[in-house]
Amino acid sequence: MAKVEAAAIQAAVEAQRGFASDLFDRLRRDGLDEPGVTRDPYGPGEQRAHATVADAAQSLGLEIERDPGVNLYMTRAGRDRAAKRVVIGSHLDSVPHGGNFDGAAGVVSGLIALSALNQLGLKPACDITVMGIRAEESIWFQVSYVGSRGALGTLPDGALDVRRIDTGRTLADHIAACGGDPASLRAGRRFLNPHDLRAYLELHIEQAPSLVESGKPVAICTGIPGNFRYPDARIEGSHDHVGLPRRFRRDAAMAGAEFAMAIDRLWEEYEARGIPMAATIGRFYTDPAMHGLTIVPGSFHFSLDVRAYDEAVLADLDQAVDQIIEGIEQSRGVLFHRGTKARAAVGPVDPTIRTALTEGAKALGIPAIDLGSPASHDAAAFAACGVPVGMIFVRNANGSHNPREAMTLDDFLAGTAVLSRWLSETVV
Amino acid sequence: MAKVEAAAIQAAVEAQRGFASDLFDRLRRDGLDEPGVTRDPYGPGEQRAHATVADAAQSLGLEIERDPGVNLYMTRAGRDRAAKRVVIGSHLDSVPHGGNFDGAAGVVSGLIALSALNQLGLKPACDITVMGIRAEESIWFQVSYVGSRGALGTLPDGALDVRRIDTGRTLADHIAACGGDPASLRAGRRFLNPHDLRAYLELHIEQAPSLVESGKPVAICTGIPGNFRYPDARIEGSHDHVGLPRRFRRDAAMAGAEFAMAIDRLWEEYEARGIPMAATIGRFYTDPAMHGLTIVPGSFHFSLDVRAYDEAVLADLDQAVDQIIEGIEQSRGVLFHRGTKARAAVGPVDPTIRTALTEGAKALGIPAIDLGSPASHDAAAFAACGVPVGMIFVRNANGSHNPREAMTLDDFLAGTAVLSRWLSETVV
Repeated sequence: MAKVEAAAIQAAVEAQRGFASDLFDRLRRDGLDEPGVTRDPYGPGEQRAHATVADAAQSLGLEIERDPGVNLYMTRAGRDRAAKRVVIGSHLDSVPHGGNFDGAAGVVSGLIALSALNQLGLKPACDITVMGIRAEESIWFQVSYVGSRGALGTLPDGALDVRRIDTGRTLADHIAACGGDPASLRAGRRFLNPHDLRAYLELHIEQAPSLVESGKPVAICTGIPGNFRYPDARIEGSHDHVGLPRRFRRDAAMAGAEFAMAIDRLWEEYEARGIPMAATIGRFYTDPAMHGLTIVPGSFHFSLDVRAYDEAVLADLDQAVDQIIEGIEQSRGVLFHRGTKARAAVGPVDPTIRTALTEGAKALGIPAIDLGSPASHDAAAFAACGVPVGMIFVRNANGSHNPREAMTLDDFLAGTAVLSRWLSETVV
Repeated sequence: MAKVEAAAIQAAVEAQRGFASDLFDRLRRDGLDEPGVTRDPYGPGEQRAHATVADAAQSLGLEIERDPGVNLYMTRAGRDRAAKRVVIGSHLDSVPHGGNFDGAAGVVSGLIALSALNQLGLKPACDITVMGIRAEESIWFQVSYVGSRGALGTLPDGALDVRRIDTGRTLADHIAACGGDPASLRAGRRFLNPHDLRAYLELHIEQAPSLVESGKPVAICTGIPGNFRYPDARIEGSHDHVGLPRRFRRDAAMAGAEFAMAIDRLWEEYEARGIPMAATIGRFYTDPAMHGLTIVPGSFHFSLDVRAYDEAVLADLDQAVDQIIEGIEQSRGVLFHRGTKARAAVGPVDPTIRTALTEGAKALGIPAIDLGSPASHDAAAFAACGVPVGMIFVRNANGSHNPREAMTLDDFLAGTAVLSRWLSETVV
């Protein structure tokens, strides 16, 4: 039997509607940069969002703390302050001219869940911390999960010396300018010890229209994809005269086209077999400095990102890509130079948390689907450290990373109810 | 019965071997710009080549003349100076760091043919003019057939105001600096009246390895291709997040890949049916200013050049390309913006000249194949004015427009013998 009735949880969350609406409005005004909002990480946009959220947390009586990476921690004390704590987090930065909800919704949701628990008179067994995470959007520093990995002491080598693409200043400079301590991060000191964390939960808008398509407000995350990537691959063929007959050509762009079509077919086959994955060839180009209307392309560049939710599937895909490349090299007389290969491990979702979230949605009468995360999230950085992770997605029209993202407050409160119920069942 | 015995013609051409070898060596030294040669049109490189060739022509006792476009005319007077004359031409410019023979071989061949006729004691019935043509390589001014069309009064509007890509100076400036008269060209005055021309013949190195593959030294041209072109086409899709499922994507680059593969298959089918054509997608690119490893490309650029030797084939291909585009637009939810469409008419070879050249090669015991010109040539500018045109290709390893082009003197003299025999049979 549930510890708290579903109707009571929904009423307590619904009571926060005005608080949520006001906070989203303030965040939108703080970040306004038409079209959309810009909350530049370790810059004025993100700083204003952090100040606004900290102010709201203070009004809820939460304890405020910041780490050397200037992440924001807003904690409701539990009965046993030494017990492993629960972190509910997401990021407060945005892409340039992005939407108001990508990231921020997860932080606001955490605050509302704590407020709802409070209204229900529930004192948690352990500390529950809402975390406003820094610099998740990799477009700025070209490094993933800067804030969360900084907190966990798992920033990659050299990360502090990368420069923000617009300011040209290093991450270390930016952190110091926001009152942080880059030297501590450089020493690899962690602020969050994974062993002290009971769970990490994150609510996030969906970045694809699967929920819109399904007509349901909420999805329970089944996994965060791992990937392998060739960021800068190249095909070497032969630059030739436009009149060269077909049999003599070693056309690098045509080889690239055949590669792309083979990747597309591979995905189609996996989809038909019901195995979730995604493949993206984001960069795909003849060099504008060399190509021409009447030159057979002798050189072609591409990137590849292949993601899946199962390490065995990723390994199969990796092998399939190699076979495709070998086949094209032989049939078209070209050479593939794969360049650097990057990998990211699959971010597993904790099965107990996932089941509990699914049961919670059911108990609350909130229609929900299972969904593999289309995108990467800070949750993956926690999962990589062995922290049990769960995620809730909220329906969102028009994708993310653009000013047209569209989440209704109803859907947001539905997702937050699922989060609140998990806390009331698990942590109270 | 032949007017002159084959053996006599071959001996007379063979006797010019030293002259040819010396002239090619001088031209190579004049143009040397390691690697290869650079004979920049209406610039120092081309000027030196013209001076060298004019000097050689003078040593052969030919009349020298120049037109307002500074083309070089080297004429052996015929018995009837008022009769329609024969022009044997090719260009003396080159691409940057090109080979020594692309263009120049045709001019040297004309001089040698006249010299051989002279040695055989043959006085032509009409004037025979060897023409050293200016500025054929369109890479410099981005205009085709500048010299020949200037002479024929068919330069396109605005051509004199285009700028050479390296100097930034206009074609008119360049012509004036070489002693020409751009005002006369601007007025559209022609130096060559097509009605006064009996025929235009051009010997050129082959720009593909068909002759190398066939093991024969010479080819008789069956036609100069016409084409249709989309120099700057674009596919509009939707820029999306890397995690977007396949069914939601409107991937412009993937649409481009499908287009390229369909064009490749089309060519394969025509080849299987024995219909000569060529299709080249020379520019094929996501925009480097916008693309990224984790962005589904929403925009893709390409160029298309489709060429064939028959207007009906071109019309069919044009329709097939439209059908391919419509199919992809529907299946992938993208839009093709074709941009400017350029066309060039098929350059027909005069059937009488072609037959005579083929019979001449046979009579001389020189193995020859029929070959559609892979590339465009000044001959097409003459054909477009109704002048009967013929072309001879000479075997050339390693393609053209590069310093590795390789024509043997034996093959060159074989091609020149075919040209000389045509003159001896037709014009004497």
